[in-house]
Amino acid sequence: MSDTINGGSTVVTPAGPDGRLGTCTADPPSPTTPVGAVVVTKVAGTVSAGYRVIERPTPGPGQLLIRPAYVGICGSDLEQLADHMPETFVINYPHVLGHEWSGEVVEVGPQVDDFEAGDRVIGHGDLGGNRWFGVTHDGAMAELFAVDGAVCLRLPAGMGLLSAALVEPFACVVEAIRKVGGVNAAHQVHVHGLGAIGLCAVIQAAITKASVVAIDPSHKRRELALSLGAELAVDPADTEAMTALAAGADVVVEASGAPPAQAAAVESGAADGRVLFMGVSVPRAVPARLGLIQQRNLTLTSSTGAPSGAWPSALRMLERHRVDLTPIVSTTFSFAECKEALARAADRGRETKVLLHP
Amino acid sequence: MSDTINGGSTVVTPAGPDGRLGTCTADPPSPTTPVGAVVVTKVAGTVSAGYRVIERPTPGPGQLLIRPAYVGICGSDLEQLADHMPETFVINYPHVLGHEWSGEVVEVGPQVDDFEAGDRVIGHGDLGGNRWFGVTHDGAMAELFAVDGAVCLRLPAGMGLLSAALVEPFACVVEAIRKVGGVNAAHQVHVHGLGAIGLCAVIQAAITKASVVAIDPSHKRRELALSLGAELAVDPADTEAMTALAAGADVVVEASGAPPAQAAAVESGAADGRVLFMGVSVPRAVPARLGLIQQRNLTLTSSTGAPSGAWPSALRMLERHRVDLTPIVSTTFSFAECKEALARAADRGRETKVLLHP
Amino acid sequence: MSDTINGGSTVVTPAGPDGRLGTCTADPPSPTTPVGAVVVTKVAGTVSAGYRVIERPTPGPGQLLIRPAYVGICGSDLEQLADHMPETFVINYPHVLGHEWSGEVVEVGPQVDDFEAGDRVIGHGDLGGNRWFGVTHDGAMAELFAVDGAVCLRLPAGMGLLSAALVEPFACVVEAIRKVGGVNAAHQVHVHGLGAIGLCAVIQAAITKASVVAIDPSHKRRELALSLGAELAVDPADTEAMTALAAGADVVVEASGAPPAQAAAVESGAADGRVLFMGVSVPRAVPARLGLIQQRNLTLTSSTGAPSGAWPSALRMLERHRVDLTPIVSTTFSFAECKEALARAADRGRETKVLLHP
Amino acid sequence: MSDTINGGSTVVTPAGPDGRLGTCTADPPSPTTPVGAVVVTKVAGTVSAGYRVIERPTPGPGQLLIRPAYVGICGSDLEQLADHMPETFVINYPHVLGHEWSGEVVEVGPQVDDFEAGDRVIGHGDLGGNRWFGVTHDGAMAELFAVDGAVCLRLPAGMGLLSAALVEPFACVVEAIRKVGGVNAAHQVHVHGLGAIGLCAVIQAAITKASVVAIDPSHKRRELALSLGAELAVDPADTEAMTALAAGADVVVEASGAPPAQAAAVESGAADGRVLFMGVSVPRAVPARLGLIQQRNLTLTSSTGAPSGAWPSALRMLERHRVDLTPIVSTTFSFAECKEALARAADRGRETKVLLHP
Repeated sequence: MSDTINGGSTVVTPAGPDGRLGTCTADPPSPTTPVGAVVVTKVAGTVSAGYRVIERPTPGPGQLLIRPAYVGICGSDLEQLADHMPETFVINYPHVLGHEWSGEVVEVGPQVDDFEAGDRVIGHGDLGGNRWFGVTHDGAMAELFAVDGAVCLRLPAGMGLLSAALVEPFACVVEAIRKVGGVNAAHQVHVHGLGAIGLCAVIQAAITKASVVAIDPSHKRRELALSLGAELAVDPADTEAMTALAAGADVVVEASGAPPAQAAAVESGAADGRVLFMGVSVPRAVPARLGLIQQRNLTLTSSTGAPSGAWPSALRMLERHRVDLTPIVSTTFSFAECKEALARAADRGRETKVLLHP
Repeated sequence: MSDTINGGSTVVTPAGPDGRLGTCTADPPSPTTPVGAVVVTKVAGTVSAGYRVIERPTPGPGQLLIRPAYVGICGSDLEQLADHMPETFVINYPHVLGHEWSGEVVEVGPQVDDFEAGDRVIGHGDLGGNRWFGVTHDGAMAELFAVDGAVCLRLPAGMGLLSAALVEPFACVVEAIRKVGGVNAAHQVHVHGLGAIGLCAVIQAAITKASVVAIDPSHKRRELALSLGAELAVDPADTEAMTALAAGADVVVEASGAPPAQAAAVESGAADGRVLFMGVSVPRAVPARLGLIQQRNLTLTSSTGAPSGAWPSALRMLERHRVDLTPIVSTTFSFAECKEALARAADRGRETKVLLHP
Repeated sequence: MSDTINGGSTVVTPAGPDGRLGTCTADPPSPTTPVGAVVVTKVAGTVSAGYRVIERPTPGPGQLLIRPAYVGICGSDLEQLADHMPETFVINYPHVLGHEWSGEVVEVGPQVDDFEAGDRVIGHGDLGGNRWFGVTHDGAMAELFAVDGAVCLRLPAGMGLLSAALVEPFACVVEAIRKVGGVNAAHQVHVHGLGAIGLCAVIQAAITKASVVAIDPSHKRRELALSLGAELAVDPADTEAMTALAAGADVVVEASGAPPAQAAAVESGAADGRVLFMGVSVPRAVPARLGLIQQRNLTLTSSTGAPSGAWPSALRMLERHRVDLTPIVSTTFSFAECKEALARAADRGRETKVLLHP
Repeated sequence: MSDTINGGSTVVTPAGPDGRLGTCTADPPSPTTPVGAVVVTKVAGTVSAGYRVIERPTPGPGQLLIRPAYVGICGSDLEQLADHMPETFVINYPHVLGHEWSGEVVEVGPQVDDFEAGDRVIGHGDLGGNRWFGVTHDGAMAELFAVDGAVCLRLPAGMGLLSAALVEPFACVVEAIRKVGGVNAAHQVHVHGLGAIGLCAVIQAAITKASVVAIDPSHKRRELALSLGAELAVDPADTEAMTALAAGADVVVEASGAPPAQAAAVESGAADGRVLFMGVSVPRAVPARLGLIQQRNLTLTSSTGAPSGAWPSALRMLERHRVDLTPIVSTTFSFAECKEALARAADRGRETKVLLHP
């Protein structure tokens, strides 16, 4: 027995109470074999995710059938499960979750010329017309999934599939840095908040040989930032060190969303400095010296997400600087362990990036 | 007896205790007649201004001899008298004060081809090499003064000398609006703080047929803003009205420098809004929702002063829209009444613009 | 007998050789009455347009059923008929042509809250996911058509339906002027090429009180530009007048696509000038003084099309300046006369804008 | 016998016909010893440069006395000798030439706190108020010269004095790249014209790991560009190779000023590409496909010179990437050989940068 998932997927077997699928297998599924997937449902106003068995998808015209290697849990996945997505997103429940993925092409659909089975690929999520892969429609947390070839990019030769699953946050930073006019070796850069976005900002500034200061309450994250190229790491509770940083940065990246960090980011800006607000949170009042904007001629602006054009730039930048993003991964789980994985990902103070795998 | 003023002026007769000059005359002074002037001195670390008699200046090569009509008191004049000027300004005490002026050419020096006696002119203050007319060197608050023709502009036919003395703050707003990409009839504009800069912002937005809301605690100033083109005027103490304005402005101009107004300016910004911080003050912490920058994709930036290129644009804009800036003037005094005038100008809550005349 | 049109429309009766439909009626068609439409087909590699009878469309969820008043013929319509559309557009033949339209809501589909029958509306063409109304999918040249409410805007009270059909080119200019930082009363503006885009540029600069020079070989168009606010109109064959214009414009709009006009547009630019290339054509070499870019610090850039966000700005600008765009219309035809209309529209030297009506 | 040089220098002994000074000595001159210098004079409308003996300069308040190591010959030096400087420059003849210099502090004047004898320094040329060191006033081509400490910067520890004399063109490129939004490892960069500016552009793009193509008719310069980081070097006469480059560059730098290279630079631009015109020349018509600007959404812009703010950025970038600019130097001469040096520098096809030394 099966019920239809919007977008064409069909749940074959509901999971047991533990979210595990008895018939799950590591072998490549045959055309008639069902596949395991992390499915989001909305029932009686309650959104939840669970491990389900769905029909094996078939790639349509222009589509690729992908066996994912890794799928990251994004902040927006957690927003969706908390039913906090902006109303502009029309979500087709139930659907397979996941849009930060890497994988291998298993099969190509009709009219696909530029990919072939065996290609290692990633993909951006913008399906056009406000349809988003893994957010409003079926995504990547399935043993096999179909996706438009038009949103996919082949990986450079030396790039691993684990690192590749982190390209999305790196591309978000590519776009953000582009918006503020670039970073180079002459710049002092402060990064407030060392989650996946903040760590990608540390890396992206450090590879240009900019001088980077990384700020986060977590000792472990600060150590990680230093290993990724930061020259200095500071605990925001260290008032003296924070005072010494004031007015020191040509480019500031606020990646935590925490109001006190937002206020500290303004203090960080040097004369003519540019302050990027990337951290997402419900706006809350915090004491801030807005007069610094006039006094130091600061520009405060924001950037959210990665447009499709930022993805090839991100890949090329990672390839040419031989950057490995895997240190950003804090934990991996199997699809079947999705409930535990999602709970862990929500512990943002502890996890930088939680990835799932089949 | 006389003592030399830096820049060539010479004080002939100190003024009496009331700041008035006994020999003052309205007749055009002969080449040997001394002239009355507002002179700033720094003695034993104390900066003060007073009415003095100085030697009649002679226009050097490329210079014009000007009889001023009106000279505005600028916030920076008050900063200088409070000895609060940034250290980057090297001030040559004693010097004649005043850089927001209009007047008539009395005589031209050698090598002047593009002006003649009788021309009605204004001038910007940038003398080059961080020398500023009326700020670091002799300025316009004298019955006659010499100034480089290179910084002067002839007035359009229909523009009065009183209105012309207000071009400087208008040019500051021209530059600020240019920096944020212009204002047009499709925009909603909020102006916080209705001093000279704020009122110029109201006018400049209103002439483009943008929809303007003017915000200030003073009833009188709000009425003035309405008469100058604002569609709505709001008291910031009116919480309900302020809440209704939130997220309503494509362009926000913060012209008060007051921290609560700075926080309110951020609340004003609509999605993709641009928020200009023009008000000058010592930065002080104020509760502000900085998270709005990310949530609404706001850009906060600043603009201070009018580069020389903004002056011809300001004149042309005023001419083509037939704008009269005189309603911005709140009080006028004679040079001899300079002490009272400066005291009144410091009462920013009450005065929009205090002007002096010979 | 009928054949299906991509998007759900169905041709009921092929038109006769004259392209006219015998059963055409002015009465509101009943749910079962077929409607006349301009349909583009591609048969054996040949693209052509003709008047056909199609099934009356039914508005789906979120859609409006519209009775169009006017539908403009756009340059891109002619490109499509010449089979010259860029390959990035996947066109679903056969389809109803037309995307520059105004009309009245006849009926609303399910889940439509913000429109009702009787509303006067226009709509932008971006359906999302590279689907374009009237270009890749069914459009507006039908006695009745269905369109997503999400792309529609209600007209301001005083705006006529004829003027409203011209909002699209006006919105293209809104976006272009935004990209170069705005136009105001201080600017000198040169417009090269006085088709619909060029005339919209003349209007948009003139309403800001910028000083506008209009340049076109056609005497009639130059007269039209003068009546729409240009201060001067010049024939590009008048070498002396063109020489006098050189280096005179702060903002230059090249709207013809003609290579000699492109070279003249560069000559037009004053110091720090911004030169906008809006005219579309196959790039051809023309002698041009590219060294002027360095010598005068020019910026040359382009803008094509109107993003959805430019449409409300255009409407608001037109409303607040009470602009009537109808003088731009050069000829109108009925849908049944589409072949003649399309031929006339292709005569770009003569026609500024050809409109169709039911 | 001596005649006064504008700015305070005094020629003690005119040079002989060969431009050499009989009494020239390598020993540090005593306070009363005259010094050899390259002096520009304008006599009867003819501008010329020669080696002269001038009075030893004395550092005034805020000034440093410098013994130069190297002084570059800039294109603007040649412009001045050809009497082709823009009229906006008011040149005080006679004056010592030279503004691209490195050297050592010999002595500091009164009120100098931030430099001391022995410091290795360079300096930008903007003296304020349109006064330019070595262009309108006395410059660096003298065995000893005085210069405002405010325009000087101390060299990083590892930077040689020969490399340091090349910072000026490098800073020009820093500013230009900033204006077009930065270059990074994701970019393809084409550089047309491999003089000092072009080679600095090659270096600056290559250190970011951008992919750089260098284009110049000179085999020797192309080889030099390859050694400095270009991945490919192309002769513009190689039509096939040039065709292969078309539409390939995200950032294009035109640094030759040659009209055919300007046209080729437009062809280089990829979709959304930015084309920088840095080469200076009298604008001359060249066949160019300006329609590419619209078709590929190119932005063409320019940048000339290095504002003072670009100099610390240039130094820091060179230090952090450990860049050695000395390969750009093509020839060095002594001050006494100035006539030969200036002739050689004018042979731009052969020389990339000619430097003088005491």
